[in-house]
Amino acid sequence: MERVLIDLESADWGNFIRWHFQMPELKTTIRNFPDGESYIRVEESVKGREVIIVCSLNNPNKKTLELILLCKTLRENGASRVGLIAPYLPYMRQDKQFHPGEGITAEYYASILSDNFNWLITADPHLHRIPKLNNIFTITTRTIHAAPFIADWILKNIKNPVIIGPDHESKQWVKKVANNAHAPYIVLNKLRPGDTEVKETIPDMRKYEGYTPVILDDIISTGKTMINAIKNLVKMRVEPPICIGVHAVFAAGAYEEMMAEGAKEIITCNTIKHSTNKIDISDGLINIL
Amino acid sequence: MERVLIDLESADWGNFIRWHFQMPELKTTIRNFPDGESYIRVEESVKGREVIIVCSLNNPNKKTLELILLCKTLRENGASRVGLIAPYLPYMRQDKQFHPGEGITAEYYASILSDNFNWLITADPHLHRIPKLNNIFTITTRTIHAAPFIADWILKNIKNPVIIGPDHESKQWVKKVANNAHAPYIVLNKLRPGDTEVKETIPDMRKYEGYTPVILDDIISTGKTMINAIKNLVKMRVEPPICIGVHAVFAAGAYEEMMAEGAKEIITCNTIKHSTNKIDISDGLINIL
Repeated sequence: MERVLIDLESADWGNFIRWHFQMPELKTTIRNFPDGESYIRVEESVKGREVIIVCSLNNPNKKTLELILLCKTLRENGASRVGLIAPYLPYMRQDKQFHPGEGITAEYYASILSDNFNWLITADPHLHRIPKLNNIFTITTRTIHAAPFIADWILKNIKNPVIIGPDHESKQWVKKVANNAHAPYIVLNKLRPGDTEVKETIPDMRKYEGYTPVILDDIISTGKTMINAIKNLVKMRVEPPICIGVHAVFAAGAYEEMMAEGAKEIITCNTIKHSTNKIDISDGLINIL
Repeated sequence: MERVLIDLESADWGNFIRWHFQMPELKTTIRNFPDGESYIRVEESVKGREVIIVCSLNNPNKKTLELILLCKTLRENGASRVGLIAPYLPYMRQDKQFHPGEGITAEYYASILSDNFNWLITADPHLHRIPKLNNIFTITTRTIHAAPFIADWILKNIKNPVIIGPDHESKQWVKKVANNAHAPYIVLNKLRPGDTEVKETIPDMRKYEGYTPVILDDIISTGKTMINAIKNLVKMRVEPPICIGVHAVFAAGAYEEMMAEGAKEIITCNTIKHSTNKIDISDGLINIL
């Protein structure tokens, strides 16, 4: 089946797909009417084709309706299959009822995407209590893991790194990155009393004198986790830490605050377009697309 | 079945429902995480209850995902039925493929709401080529007509009105308002070369000397239709016109431009909260809710 690309918002993923897979781009018009509604037009035939949409889904409340209307437009016009590459997959954190009456939005969001797309590719979805995407998606899903790309970047760019995991949940992942980067690692204990408040304890760093601390997390949103780790490291008079995240969500002011608190540099993977994108993980598509 | 209300964004409709139907309001928490995702919690039991959500759906791309996640949360927690009162129903204008490849977003939006809600109540949906809402909705729908409320307002507030319809499509509706308000009416011919550009011709107004011109339209979005009519009336040196719309969508600058061009006053119905809301049509719920 012939495959065509719609590159909605992809950091460099669209470029990589065009280049590596030689995939043609579908001509479309997608714009807003003055009242904010979306106008969508497919400018060439999609009959019998598989359409692949690349769209990073940060700010999901603003993007998802248009994405679904686009998907329905493609099917209306004869597309055989519509697949979604979402380098960042949102709504994965509310994956159970922590309190009675809460919406399990991870499940609902997965069901909305499953109702519309034939398959999904994403990178490092934030899954804690749900073991696999296929527990909540009814369509085929494939995941790209950022860990080997991050380890490779650390190996090439940081001398004597010590990898610092912000909480116990991150341990397996931090250990994997550290092993691939031939570096030692430590894991902090995090307490999270609310959405935006985070506390943690830092173990003794004296044995890592002369090392460069590298704090690792999957999503940088408010940056509070990183900021607390930075503050503790600053107190211990170690080297200014390098902060690496997979997903550059960055709530307003988060980047500036992290830098102000003493981060040496902030590095992210290219799953959400941001000036910190230094680690290109779109190569991960090679064996799965 | 016991009915409970969630008043998301309703101009005065929520107040009217609380007052007239003595309907209790369901305690909920709906807020945004710092990354823009919605947190939704139902704070009391909805088991076996019918939940009625009131939400005016202007800016649909920003509001619809959260509305659907709320609906799914209510069902997760045992609600028997979930109904939607949308005083303004969006996406009704793109109701056919005007050009090959276009999305028929009126149908898709209707199917998204139909998949989630048990029934819909709205006011004056902008239907042209689709004769009835039930041609695109698979759920029960009921419509409140603004015409009698507008006619009543004109009768009480305007001396010697002449009702002016902006285009031929509006003729039936304008005639109805005019008849109910015991006023003469004229209908302009509108040409619409693009989304934002509108031209029209105004017939001779000399026989309406001493009358107050009242321009009538269903949606005021860019205001271009109204502005062109105002300009033509100004040229004819008639009284400054009163502009009445049902839905106060008001794209940026539209209100200011209409006033600057010579509108005496702009009046709308309370389907979208706006300072021009002078005509309360929520009474229309009395016989249908």
